[in-house]
Parts: sequence; C-alpha cells; structure tokens
Amino acid sequence: EVSFDPKEHQHLRYNPLRDTWVLVSAHRMKRPWAGQVEKPPEEHTPRYDPRNPLCPGNTRANGEVNSDYDSTFLFENDFPALQPDAPDPGSDQHPLFQSKVARGVCKVMCFHPWSDVTLSLMKKQEVVKVIDKWAELIEELGTTYLWVQIFENKGAMMGCSNPHPHCQVWASNFLPNEPALSDRCQRAYYQKHGEPLLLQYAKQEAEKKERVVVETSDWLAVVPYWATWPYQTLLLPRRHVLRINDLTTEEREGLADIMKQLLTKYDNLFEISFPYSMGWHGAPTGPHLNKDNSHWQLHAHYYPPLLRSATVKKFMVGYEMLAQDQRDLTPEQAAEKLRNLPEEHYKTREN
Amino acid sequence: EVSFDPKEHQHLRYNPLRDTWVLVSAHRMKRPWAGQVEKPPEEHTPRYDPRNPLCPGNTRANGEVNSDYDSTFLFENDFPALQPDAPDPGSDQHPLFQSKVARGVCKVMCFHPWSDVTLSLMKKQEVVKVIDKWAELIEELGTTYLWVQIFENKGAMMGCSNPHPHCQVWASNFLPNEPALSDRCQRAYYQKHGEPLLLQYAKQEAEKKERVVVETSDWLAVVPYWATWPYQTLLLPRRHVLRINDLTTEEREGLADIMKQLLTKYDNLFEISFPYSMGWHGAPTGPHLNKDNSHWQLHAHYYPPLLRSATVKKFMVGYEMLAQDQRDLTPEQAAEKLRNLPEEHYKTREN
Ligand SMILES: O=P(O)(O)O[C@H]1O[C@H](CO)[C@@H](O)[C@H](O)[C@H]1O
Ligand SMILES: O=P(O)(O)O[C@H]1O[C@H](CO)[C@@H](O)[C@H](O)[C@H]1O
Repeated sequence: EVSFDPKEHQHLRYNPLRDTWVLVSAHRMKRPWAGQVEKPPEEHTPRYDPRNPLCPGNTRANGEVNSDYDSTFLFENDFPALQPDAPDPGSDQHPLFQSKVARGVCKVMCFHPWSDVTLSLMKKQEVVKVIDKWAELIEELGTTYLWVQIFENKGAMMGCSNPHPHCQVWASNFLPNEPALSDRCQRAYYQKHGEPLLLQYAKQEAEKKERVVVETSDWLAVVPYWATWPYQTLLLPRRHVLRINDLTTEEREGLADIMKQLLTKYDNLFEISFPYSMGWHGAPTGPHLNKDNSHWQLHAHYYPPLLRSATVKKFMVGYEMLAQDQRDLTPEQAAEKLRNLPEEHYKTREN
Repeated sequence: EVSFDPKEHQHLRYNPLRDTWVLVSAHRMKRPWAGQVEKPPEEHTPRYDPRNPLCPGNTRANGEVNSDYDSTFLFENDFPALQPDAPDPGSDQHPLFQSKVARGVCKVMCFHPWSDVTLSLMKKQEVVKVIDKWAELIEELGTTYLWVQIFENKGAMMGCSNPHPHCQVWASNFLPNEPALSDRCQRAYYQKHGEPLLLQYAKQEAEKKERVVVETSDWLAVVPYWATWPYQTLLLPRRHVLRINDLTTEEREGLADIMKQLLTKYDNLFEISFPYSMGWHGAPTGPHLNKDNSHWQLHAHYYPPLLRSATVKKFMVGYEMLAQDQRDLTPEQAAEKLRNLPEEHYKTREN
C-alpha cells in the first residue's frame, strides 16, 4: 500500500468558508504548456500622464476635475453598476423568473498621486492612509448599506483598465452571494464549535507553519488549505475583529507592514508587478450593525491568476466552471515558494 | 414614479439552478473600454499539422501513436487531473483541514480528423457521431463513476491549448460542487412543484420567446433569465430526459441540428471562431443509477467570455470573485442579438 502524499496524489480539500471542495492534482504541474500566453505587465508607467483620468488635476469622462490630491483620493465611479435609486421590479413573480431591487453606490479610490507606484512600493505611512480611508468608508457607507465591498483589480490581466494604483468600493442594499455563503458557513461553525471559524483557523496555521507566507505579531498571511488559485492567500488578524474600522492604530500599522511584505513577495515571484484581485470581507453592516455577528472574523482574500510564469495563468474554465475548481500545485508548495522569496522588492534591489 | 425597465434599471435576478443572484446593470454598457484586448482567434489553422498531437497518425507526448481515425477519436489524457488509483488521505481530521480521496479518469475526444473545422462547420452526420460517442461515454463510465463531466474548452482565450476540435471527459468517484448544487436545487423544486425545474422552465421560455435563440421541435436554446456571461446559453430538450444516453435517434439528429445552428450564430456574432467553455449536466450515475432522479433534466451550459467584440471579453474579477456576478447587457438583449444573426455561417457565405 502506497501511503498518501499530497504532492503526488490527487485528493479533494474542503473549503469551510464556502462549503465546497477543490480538486488538488499536483502531479499535473509536469504537463507542458503550449497554450495562450499573456502580455507581461507594463513595467514603464509614467508617474503622471495628462490623459489618465485618475491622475491629480486631470479631467474625467464626465467633465469633473480631480483635486490636486497628495495622498488618497475618492470619487464616484463614472459608470456605476449600482446607483442609489432604481425602481423596484415588483413582487408576484414566477419562481423561475424572480428579480429584486438593487440599490447602492460605486466609488473609486486612488491610493497615491503617482501612477508608477503600487502598494508594495509605497511608504508604510502612505499605506496606513489607505487603510484609514478603507475604515472610514466602511464606517460611513455601512450606516446605510448592508454590504460594502472593497476590492482591487490589479493588472490588465484582471480586467483593470487603468495602471494608476486604485481600488473600488461597491456598497449595496443586499448581501451578495459570496458574503452570504461565508456568513452562513461562519455562523454554523460558531454554533457548533463556540469559537469563530477563522480565529481557530489562524491559531492552527500559526502552529503548523507550513502554509504561512508572512506573519507579524498581529497578522497572518497564509495560502489557505483550500486555496483554488495557485498563489491565493488569506490575510487575517490574530485577534477577533469584526470589521476593518475596528482595527486599532497599532493593528493598522501592522496591516500596512504585512501588506507590503506579502505584496513584495508577490512581485518578486516572477519579478513583475503581480496581477490579482483582492477584497475585504468583514461582518455585514447597515441593519446588521445591531445584530450579533460574533461568528465573523475580518479577512482579505487575494486571488492572483498566474501559475507558471509572468505570462502563463491558470485557466478556470471547462471543468472548473461546470464541475469543480482544480489546482495543480499544492497550497503548501505555493506557500513555501512565496515564503522563501527575498523580502526586498526586486525593483529597489536593482537600484 | 419611474416604472421599472430591465434595460435601464439595475436589478438582481435569481438563478434557481444555483440558488444565487446576478446583478444586471445594462446601463453600464455605455462605459468606454480602455483595458486589455485579447488576441483575435487564429483563423488559419492547417487541416493537418505533423506536430499536432491530436491529428490522425501523429505521436503524442507519451510516445503513443494516434490511429488514422476518420471520425471521432478517444484516448486517455496524457496529464490527467484524475487517475483511477490514489491512496486515501484517511479520516480523523480537524474540521478545518478536511481532505477526501479523489479517483477518476480523464479522456480526450477528437471530434473530427481535420484541425480546421469546428462543430458549427462539421456536417450534421459528423456531429451526430460526436453525440453518439458522448452517449456511449456516459453509459460506459457511468457504470463505475458517480459523475461523468463532458466539457469543451474552445479557443485559446478559454485555456484551450490545441486548435484541433476536441472535448474532454473527466469522470470521478465524487459529485463535484456544481452538479451537487444543481442536484439540490432541482430536487427541492421538484418536491415543491411536482415537476422538474427545467421542464417547467423550458415550457415558459418557449411561450415567452424573448430569450429564445434557436428552437427545433425537440430542443430549445435560450439565454437563461439568470445568465451571468454576456452570451451564455442553456440548451435543453423539451421532453423529460435524464441523461444524454437516453436520447432517441431522432433527438440526437435534432440535437446535431440545434448545436450547429447555435454555434453558427455564435461564430457569426463577431465573425470569428467563437470561444467558449461548454459542458453537459445530466442525472448522476454510478450508485445513482438505481435511485430516483426524476428531478433531473439533461442540459448543456455554454459559457462564452466575449462581451463587446472579438477581442474584448467580460472580466469576472474583483466584485464578481469577492461578492457576486454582474452583467452589463440584459439576457433579453443578448438573445435578440443572437436570434437576429444570419443562419448561414460567415465562412461558407464568403465562398
Ligand atoms: O486540460 P487542458 O485543456 O490542458 O487544460 C485546460 O482545461 C482544464 C479543465 O477545465 C483546466 O483545469 C486548465 O486550467 C485549462 O488550461
Ligand atoms: O469597473 P472596471 O474596473 O472598469 O471593471 C472591472 O471590474 C468590475 C468589477 O469587478 C467588473 O465587473 C468588470 O468586468 C471589470 O472589467
């Protein structure tokens, strides 16, 4: 009888935040790749581009002029998927043709006045300002909206159409599918085990170490046991924290540190500005502010598409869309690779 | 009070097969696109390429030689994500670190000896042979495996690394996430309404007509009410059919017809060989063959990535990954566009 080796033997792993499984087939990394290669990310973005609608002082599509900002800068998305007013489609619907009203706002937030920096290359205090602004947004929009989704699409490969460092915030009167699922899973776990799922998880990972990428006294970044994207990570506080606006000043400084460390590792992996989509999940807001949300733990998900190199990504296609996510290297292999990368950014090392 | 217009007003729609919602914001199509453009699909594939491992008579990576096939051709995937033997990771696991044994097989099936054809351009009787082979595979692998996923990744944009017309078949000892969800939803609907969900749905759509793309006496292709991808379609028999091997000879002929019609519309939309991932969902097999699966209805999902043109796709990124799927044009608009396209393929029209 051969004994089980996750690096050699295909198996399924359970994602307790989504109540789904992922197929891990590490032996498949051996297969040659003759398919599509992506354009490598643009490495020479000008610091200021007079035609870029996100730069300080420039005019946007709708004629509005950006302030001459020198830190973060927030404005309403000019083509919002969610607007504050929309008529109700009405009730009395056939069960197979159900619609519901959707109301909300979409904002864009620039991280920095310069187009040629990223969070990994910004100064720590500049990153703290971004975190403070995130906290403010959750606080402000959270009084009205049930869910405030902060997310960053980074890189053209992730559908990001502007190289200027920025994120988006979409707030809605409804709980979207993904947080609704995560809410259900965390609640059920809490009821059964008496402790928040992600708090128990962080403790286990901090002990086991094999999936840890970087850690500080307050934070932990791991390739989760159930990761689907090759270099997916989960960023967690060690203390029980419901929402980003509950973080102390010290924890925000620590978060800036670990974000810079994690994103530097990402950039160093293939020595490019690493593409990803990331976003924050915390306890719901609006009408949920008065409810018990002890089962929730604040966390950020990072979903980077690359698999083999700066130009070969993992395609989540046929089998993944129709059946189940599948990954080629184990989360432990991915974590080890990231962990062992230099702490200094390849761009500053060169100089 | 403005009255609700789905083309103008954002709203949510319910997907009864997945118990999730999609955000529809049609007004967002007005936004300009300055982001990543894809390479247009290669239009000049040679009919035979001595280096292509899928062509008749050629040698594959593992040294095996393909037969000199003149119809369909089936072989084992040389880099399978699922193999028949794999040791069991064992039980007695922490609830946050659960794994399970995964066993299965992965096969590749060429549709035709020529590399320069697609299902849309093949003769009807050649497509019938593909359908017969699909039915055979469900029958054969279904005796052993609980789930047999037939899927086609078409085009480099969908991670397909070989232009030769082919699909894949991954069979497993487990019910993957997507069919498991669909099974649950169809079962609950059947228990409540006494008729299969997709049978009621097909009847409704055949009457309403606004989302129908093509129809024949036995089949229906619609942009589902809850579609997430811009030109996503659902292909359904009108009769209650559990699995593809239950189709009569006549229904297989009809399926070949409607597939050719649908795929011709797809190719005609941007006058390119249209990329997509597609796959079949039918009642589970293996141990489920003796169980009551009346709630199931056979269907195929088509998920094409393109949104605006041959080179601009819909990016399912930040908000979609972290929160909820979002679409820019309504399913009715997409169906109308496809429905009104010529029935003759742009390639044969040129000649
Ligand atoms: O097996 P292929 O065609 O090389 O691989 C393709 O399809 C698979 C199944 O959907 C995916 O897991 C791969 O990411 C994709 O590149
Ligand atoms: O708003 P953007 O950055 O133009 O658009 C990008 O992010 C959105 C939110 O994830 C997606 O819906 C779009 O498909 C993507 O292109």
